[in-house]
Amino acid sequence: MSRFVKAGDVRHETFDWGRIGWRCTPDTTGSTQLVVMDVAIEPGKGHDFHRHPEQDEVIVVSSGQIEQWLERDRQELGPGDSVYVDAGVVHASFNVGPETAQLQVIIGPAMPGGAGYDVEDVSDQEPWAALARARDPY
Amino acid sequence: MSRFVKAGDVRHETFDWGRIGWRCTPDTTGSTQLVVMDVAIEPGKGHDFHRHPEQDEVIVVSSGQIEQWLERDRQELGPGDSVYVDAGVVHASFNVGPETAQLQVIIGPAMPGGAGYDVEDVSDQEPWAALARARDPY
Repeated sequence: MSRFVKAGDVRHETFDWGRIGWRCTPDTTGSTQLVVMDVAIEPGKGHDFHRHPEQDEVIVVSSGQIEQWLERDRQELGPGDSVYVDAGVVHASFNVGPETAQLQVIIGPAMPGGAGYDVEDVSDQEPWAALARARDPY
Repeated sequence: MSRFVKAGDVRHETFDWGRIGWRCTPDTTGSTQLVVMDVAIEPGKGHDFHRHPEQDEVIVVSSGQIEQWLERDRQELGPGDSVYVDAGVVHASFNVGPETAQLQVIIGPAMPGGAGYDVEDVSDQEPWAALARARDPY
């Protein structure tokens, strides 16, 4: 159902790597198409290799420096940079800067119910585990 | 097809009311689910009443002050505020601040081909035309 979502309305969830602000999810807005998250990643932390089997994703860097992986390719992304990830494609994001990185993360379509977000962790599978081990230490 | 979209890769289109940066569209990334736009609205300008018949939308204010309409309701949105708009629901956004307003606009699913964006202008229909005429002069 259409609604205003003010900054104070965004529900935050804290993890050991940072924080997710759930801005638009099926259980808050009823959207069947869009999951929108404000993601904060702490320095030296990241979201290790994973994929969303049935959902396309766009990650826009609002602030900070991110080492973004797209399968075996990686690029460093700063403010105004982004990545588009097709459904099923393995990717990962690590904060390689000195400050908390802020990302606008968009996933679609929404899976029915809850946060609308489906993820498969592949960080313990090869070649992803080896790629993560071989990363430069920041 | 998955790809990095750096700040310099975003194609900008200029209008009399501001600018759209097409960050993710079917013709640039191949996404069938997500259209992501960087929208800049000049002071005193706006996107008059319209609707997207088959697409949900999220508008997040990055900077500036927006008078956001959701059918007959309106709220002033600042940085970190947003609105979720169900497919088919009439809405409008006007810049009521002294500076260019920057918005992250997300629409899904993507319509096939081109920018993936379908819009129906209702600004000359009632009650929308009367509401726009009755707006406070900023």
